[in-house]
Amino acid sequence: MQAVLDYLAQNQNRFLEELCAYVRFPSVSAQPQHRGDLLACAEWLVQHCQSIGLKARLCPTAGHPVVIASTPVVPGASAKRPRFLVYGHYDVQPPEPFELWTSPPFEPRLEGRSLFARGATDNKGQNLAHLKAVEAYLKTNTPLPCDITFVLEGEEEVGSKSLGDFLLANQAELACDAIVISDTGMPSKKHPALTYALRGIAAFEVTLHGPARDLHSGIFGGTVDNPAMALCQMLGKLRDKNGRVAIPGFYDQVKPLAAFERKQFARLPYKESDYKKLLGVKQLFGEKGYTPIEQRSARPTLEINGLTSGYQGEGSKTIVPSWARVKITTRLVPDQNPARIIKLVQQHLKKLCPPSIRMEITAGHGAEPYLVSPTSPHAQAALRALKSAFGCEPVIMREGGSIPIVNSFKKILGADALMLGLALPDDNAHSPNEKFDLDCFEKGQVMSAQLWQELSK
Amino acid sequence: MQAVLDYLAQNQNRFLEELCAYVRFPSVSAQPQHRGDLLACAEWLVQHCQSIGLKARLCPTAGHPVVIASTPVVPGASAKRPRFLVYGHYDVQPPEPFELWTSPPFEPRLEGRSLFARGATDNKGQNLAHLKAVEAYLKTNTPLPCDITFVLEGEEEVGSKSLGDFLLANQAELACDAIVISDTGMPSKKHPALTYALRGIAAFEVTLHGPARDLHSGIFGGTVDNPAMALCQMLGKLRDKNGRVAIPGFYDQVKPLAAFERKQFARLPYKESDYKKLLGVKQLFGEKGYTPIEQRSARPTLEINGLTSGYQGEGSKTIVPSWARVKITTRLVPDQNPARIIKLVQQHLKKLCPPSIRMEITAGHGAEPYLVSPTSPHAQAALRALKSAFGCEPVIMREGGSIPIVNSFKKILGADALMLGLALPDDNAHSPNEKFDLDCFEKGQVMSAQLWQELSK
Repeated sequence: MQAVLDYLAQNQNRFLEELCAYVRFPSVSAQPQHRGDLLACAEWLVQHCQSIGLKARLCPTAGHPVVIASTPVVPGASAKRPRFLVYGHYDVQPPEPFELWTSPPFEPRLEGRSLFARGATDNKGQNLAHLKAVEAYLKTNTPLPCDITFVLEGEEEVGSKSLGDFLLANQAELACDAIVISDTGMPSKKHPALTYALRGIAAFEVTLHGPARDLHSGIFGGTVDNPAMALCQMLGKLRDKNGRVAIPGFYDQVKPLAAFERKQFARLPYKESDYKKLLGVKQLFGEKGYTPIEQRSARPTLEINGLTSGYQGEGSKTIVPSWARVKITTRLVPDQNPARIIKLVQQHLKKLCPPSIRMEITAGHGAEPYLVSPTSPHAQAALRALKSAFGCEPVIMREGGSIPIVNSFKKILGADALMLGLALPDDNAHSPNEKFDLDCFEKGQVMSAQLWQELSK
Repeated sequence: MQAVLDYLAQNQNRFLEELCAYVRFPSVSAQPQHRGDLLACAEWLVQHCQSIGLKARLCPTAGHPVVIASTPVVPGASAKRPRFLVYGHYDVQPPEPFELWTSPPFEPRLEGRSLFARGATDNKGQNLAHLKAVEAYLKTNTPLPCDITFVLEGEEEVGSKSLGDFLLANQAELACDAIVISDTGMPSKKHPALTYALRGIAAFEVTLHGPARDLHSGIFGGTVDNPAMALCQMLGKLRDKNGRVAIPGFYDQVKPLAAFERKQFARLPYKESDYKKLLGVKQLFGEKGYTPIEQRSARPTLEINGLTSGYQGEGSKTIVPSWARVKITTRLVPDQNPARIIKLVQQHLKKLCPPSIRMEITAGHGAEPYLVSPTSPHAQAALRALKSAFGCEPVIMREGGSIPIVNSFKKILGADALMLGLALPDDNAHSPNEKFDLDCFEKGQVMSAQLWQELSK
């Protein structure tokens, strides 16, 4: 084991260069013009996996390809030899707005221990940490106590549409004892974390159509409904003054927080002034009756992600716009069901839409919320690996983001996910100036190396 | 006089070519990149005016230049010889959205009697009609019974910011008995119209600032106010269910409609099914208690002209946006005052803005509403010219659009405006596929030719 740890310690500079190469691919899955970049990134991954001794291949899907990479078969291994998957994704969020980046999003920049680039923390840096740990075993000829298969997909940021089918088609090959995922966060470098629950998601795009074309607001204004105003009036009614989602039935399936959970949350490091500074706001706003940690990880939300209507250029254009559009996502908690929520939202919007407006609703991706026991043997093994690598007591937590695929893994492969996130709260995932901390990168590699030992005990 | 009318009849083909040359200039005053196009258009106008026998010059301003063109001084004319201004503008609305134009906005296309191009009806075709009438007098050596000065500006679509100062600086030169403006509409070719009132305008841009950057809606959503949601909640409260502007004090200065006005409006041609078809809506929406003709011309409104927030590209981006922006214009009627309305709107928005959001309000251009007597000798003269040119009984009406400069003319030059609009309701002013009807162009020239006789009687 010492050889593995030494190898990791001695190769950090090269690992950083490799991470830089990885984040240079503008693998933005939401934008069709980047299809070629996703393919190039996946091909790079296959070659990289092969170069470290894994058996790797690129698997086409209806969307972007999946990269599969496995540790070499151990001759004469027992049928009971443990087998784990490592899940990650090589696609990234759109980098817009470009003007808020200090340096170009796909040209990695190192400042202190922070590597700035789109995808650095979400999720390239995190999945590369696991690859480096396995590389250390393979390159030092240290026997791995288990088989490991990497599943690296290219559609996580757009709802992992193809991965379900992919898992179904490769069910036998991917059978495993658990799935290890580092795509969540830790409260600080002194609080390495096991995440035992995630929020789900349901996305919508709603377009309200008014007049057939933009109309002169002087000549026609006053006789025709303004779709931008109608949209505001409808959306404004979706949140009440207590910060609750004002859609009938929205909270019906929400499981109340257990006392032990609220107690755990209260132990997580949190300082309101620091948190406000991190977000850049003077005042927080959330659902009454819950702490910010609960609000952001264990309570459902509805957010407007984007608004579009009429003239947006410089100066003014005196029109009644022809249409108005909103992008909405709801974050869901156990036991809310995305399909049911989509139906409730659609029904309610239809009820709110005035007869003077024609509405079009598109339901986008959905993912169920996720919750597993933090006291299972696998979870305990993971907590030991975290403690060993980071040198301090880990915390257990819930996280507000969604990793749509964890439910598919559970349903299709019958295996639970161990979420051992390496992202820090100020990593700016999904924001301009995304970064990854190189301490998290290195300790993540050590944690991964220890994890295979602990999980296989 | 017959020589003038014959000249007009014989030169329509050339006039059409000249109109095409005029509308080819992309003179979009709201967009800084078109500054050079505005200058080129103004220079073209000066040359054109000179070629038809006017004394013309280009007058620089703090914004886009004003073109001044006068009929030659008549030797030995009486000091009481009447003097009229013709006001028009050579700037145009932004052409966006380009994809809704059947043919490019600045490449004129003739279909039947319709000339399609941005600026065709608003206002190039209309002011060119007056130039052609004066050309007919000058080229046929027919004595004009009055002096005429054209004032053609390049900032009407952005609030005529420089024209007030220009009028002040040239007060003596521009002294006149009345101002003739063709920048309004007529209900149909069988209803030539004198417009005796205009709505005023007050424009705003409101930006709500939330978190310092776009935030991951999973990681942070639930703890921070969403500026797009806050904007919707604020804007949604600005209009009540009866279609009234819900800002305290907004209607305080509104002069109730006189009985004779409502009677006149009821005589204007209007068919709801045709109007709905023109607008492309299944149902109209407006202030309760008023007819659509009253709503669009004689009642104040508040319209959202544009909404911007967060991610607007393809697919989804799961963020809490950092900011949200709205462009708003209010249309005002006598005796509402733009400065007072701007104050009321700002005060009310400040009251509505939650403490979790930072608001920025920019007040844009404002113009007072306008109202003159439709029974003055000048108005009666104009009605005779309309009747003679169009061969049918003209109507008197109010119009919903704003021509900010009419109040400046009144204040600075002490002269009233005669608004003799040549635009048809389906001319798509401010919309894609703007057009001008060549019948209106030709009859407008005849009306202008007759007008100088009638006004000087």
